[in-house]
Amino acid sequence: MWLYLAAFVGLYYLLHWYRERQVVSHLQDKYVFITGCDSGFGNLLARQLDARGLRVLAACLTEKGAEQLRGQTSDRLETVTLDVTKMESIAAATQWVKEHVGDRGLWGLVNNAGILTPITLCEWLNTEDSMNMLKVNLIGVIQVTLSMLPLVRRARGRIVNVSSILGRVAFFVGGYCVSKYGVEAFSDILRREIQHFGVKISIVEPGYFRTGMTNMTQSLERMKQSWKEAPKHIKETYGQQYFDARDRSFVGVGFVNFL
Amino acid sequence: MWLYLAAFVGLYYLLHWYRERQVVSHLQDKYVFITGCDSGFGNLLARQLDARGLRVLAACLTEKGAEQLRGQTSDRLETVTLDVTKMESIAAATQWVKEHVGDRGLWGLVNNAGILTPITLCEWLNTEDSMNMLKVNLIGVIQVTLSMLPLVRRARGRIVNVSSILGRVAFFVGGYCVSKYGVEAFSDILRREIQHFGVKISIVEPGYFRTGMTNMTQSLERMKQSWKEAPKHIKETYGQQYFDARDRSFVGVGFVNFL
Repeated sequence: MWLYLAAFVGLYYLLHWYRERQVVSHLQDKYVFITGCDSGFGNLLARQLDARGLRVLAACLTEKGAEQLRGQTSDRLETVTLDVTKMESIAAATQWVKEHVGDRGLWGLVNNAGILTPITLCEWLNTEDSMNMLKVNLIGVIQVTLSMLPLVRRARGRIVNVSSILGRVAFFVGGYCVSKYGVEAFSDILRREIQHFGVKISIVEPGYFRTGMTNMTQSLERMKQSWKEAPKHIKETYGQQYFDARDRSFVGVGFVNFL
Repeated sequence: MWLYLAAFVGLYYLLHWYRERQVVSHLQDKYVFITGCDSGFGNLLARQLDARGLRVLAACLTEKGAEQLRGQTSDRLETVTLDVTKMESIAAATQWVKEHVGDRGLWGLVNNAGILTPITLCEWLNTEDSMNMLKVNLIGVIQVTLSMLPLVRRARGRIVNVSSILGRVAFFVGGYCVSKYGVEAFSDILRREIQHFGVKISIVEPGYFRTGMTNMTQSLERMKQSWKEAPKHIKETYGQQYFDARDRSFVGVGFVNFL
């Protein structure tokens, strides 16, 4: 009887010790750099990690976004403006991070910045919109990662790339899926290449969440605009009727298309 | 007994008729546009389809490649020079194809052009090499497809995109996988979007074949060059020893990295 009790108590403490080990300690010494903190997931993450006591280095696309974020968070959180499509902007942000983290290195890098241009068919979307998605969502992730990697390596840190369920299933919105598929490939390869440095890479693949990106009214407006701007031969080929049908079934636009 | 024989003969003719139906007829009226016909798969396909009697419109990157191909094929085959990274070059080639196919449209489009820059780790590869792979292997495929699509639609034709096994498994050579993952996503989405026009899209995913792309001596040379050109901090981080180990195990470079 006493033996069982002793074993039970021992097991309890073992589990407790194990659970404690999973918790990250000394949060106040840990720097996390997050891109795209103006709104959505990035903004939420910056505020939450700040509230948990981590040292958040938040990159915003606009100074306005940065100002708003600073107004909602502690003095620990610091911001920088970053356009992930511009190499010089990435280099400047990297230098800024380097000065902040010093010898400790960067404990976490979250590549969250991303855009979703009009939800349309591949053939309607103009080249510029298509290329912009690639530049921000894919090339931006690659360049920011490679630029910050030496700092992450110093801390034997981790990198989190925000992909999407559309990075696994090519469902709808051509350019977006293409960019997210690329993020998956890049993350999977880099993970193996740098694992012996003790750096880990994770991919987050959100489904449908209510962020600015999935704002239905706005998406509908931009889809209409995109149809309006489509070349004449595209309009003739698909026809107004086809567009109207898509318009009505917008909520299920991807599903309709998928089935 | 006679009944069985009659059923057997009937079945034989049914199968024969079914098999015949699978064979494409009137090959001499069918136009196929193939990119990257200077060498490798594109060159082989152009010559084979020409020998089978199809009307091959072969796009080569260089005039020299085009000249060589014309020397090995019938008068039916015609060539055009095309750089898939340049919009004006794609537009000119599309106009050229349009003039050739006329009202019949383009029966087949094969996006074969692709490059593989040095086989290195993500961190060693310079930005330019990385971006070039994306431009040729991914953006080139998207732009050529969208530009030729109206002609393919007229013939209710088919599009064949040459991807790679590295478009399914992110194995090694970061930029290459990223571009091929993108091709998979783009093809899967466009397939659904244009299926009601009667246009089909297939993806070919070759494994390891002996083309110019997989020339071992050349790859080794380029890998060494890439290491030589890598920034100082990369050399210090990975170390000469690491490079030498990779150098020796080059044949299994991807496998070694994967395991």
